[in-house]
Amino acid sequence: MGLTPLNEIAPLLPRDAALAVDALRACGDVFIEEEILTAATMLQEALDGEYTALAAIVEGEFAGYCLAGRTPFTVSTWHLYWLCVHPRFHRCGVARALQSALEKTARDSGCERIVVETGGRKAYEPARRFYTAAGYQQCGRIEDYYHPGDACVFYCKLLS
Amino acid sequence: MGLTPLNEIAPLLPRDAALAVDALRACGDVFIEEEILTAATMLQEALDGEYTALAAIVEGEFAGYCLAGRTPFTVSTWHLYWLCVHPRFHRCGVARALQSALEKTARDSGCERIVVETGGRKAYEPARRFYTAAGYQQCGRIEDYYHPGDACVFYCKLLS
Repeated sequence: MGLTPLNEIAPLLPRDAALAVDALRACGDVFIEEEILTAATMLQEALDGEYTALAAIVEGEFAGYCLAGRTPFTVSTWHLYWLCVHPRFHRCGVARALQSALEKTARDSGCERIVVETGGRKAYEPARRFYTAAGYQQCGRIEDYYHPGDACVFYCKLLS
Repeated sequence: MGLTPLNEIAPLLPRDAALAVDALRACGDVFIEEEILTAATMLQEALDGEYTALAAIVEGEFAGYCLAGRTPFTVSTWHLYWLCVHPRFHRCGVARALQSALEKTARDSGCERIVVETGGRKAYEPARRFYTAAGYQQCGRIEDYYHPGDACVFYCKLLS
């Protein structure tokens, strides 16, 4: 029986799914209930192989996850649907480690670009800064998309 | 027993679903097989009440359909997922009649904006002209999204 590494990015395991939902809930007003329910469904679908999901383990604890997959009707475009780090592990580089590992996994599967849709409101300002710093370019914006005052902002990163 | 009107836009009925798939296939290289399979699934889901689908009847024949619904995680944004007119009925104003009726139905359900994602390649030039003429504004573009040379172009129309 192998020992679990204390710090790693690894494929999401069944026991991580509930912890991932806990992390989404712990993020306060970032995710609405409809998002959390959809995210929970997609976590199960990822465990069934429909999506790629990676977990971040920090000192043996579940710290966050990301979930992505090929965008329907496309050849080599992926959507990064969810990226969530439990607030206890914010500002430790966990999101960056997940995004970097996800990009490597996607590239190895033939992905040439990753698209992210995120919110325009204040709670998503750190997310927008994060994607910009990680090399994602804004490629669209729809005002009042989620609700009045909360735009949808589209980003895309070309994988070389 | 009522007579079926010869010309109308009406809620899609079970017998229309197969005709809608026929219309998608008749459009040649506009829709890829993955799109047609997804569209067929969504037609069944529309019949189960998950989406709003309208059929265009011209002289008693099924001429085309559109399928739309509230965009996940939004309050008052809808996506127009599918709009297809059988080539036999092109250039008769069928698409315009469907789009206009859909916008009325959406507005009556509290929708304030409709988003459309369409292709950047030549086969979609008529679609892009159609949406622009119908008051949709381009709000984003991702190059090579569907496949090399075929962008995704996002449009949005505010419903007053």
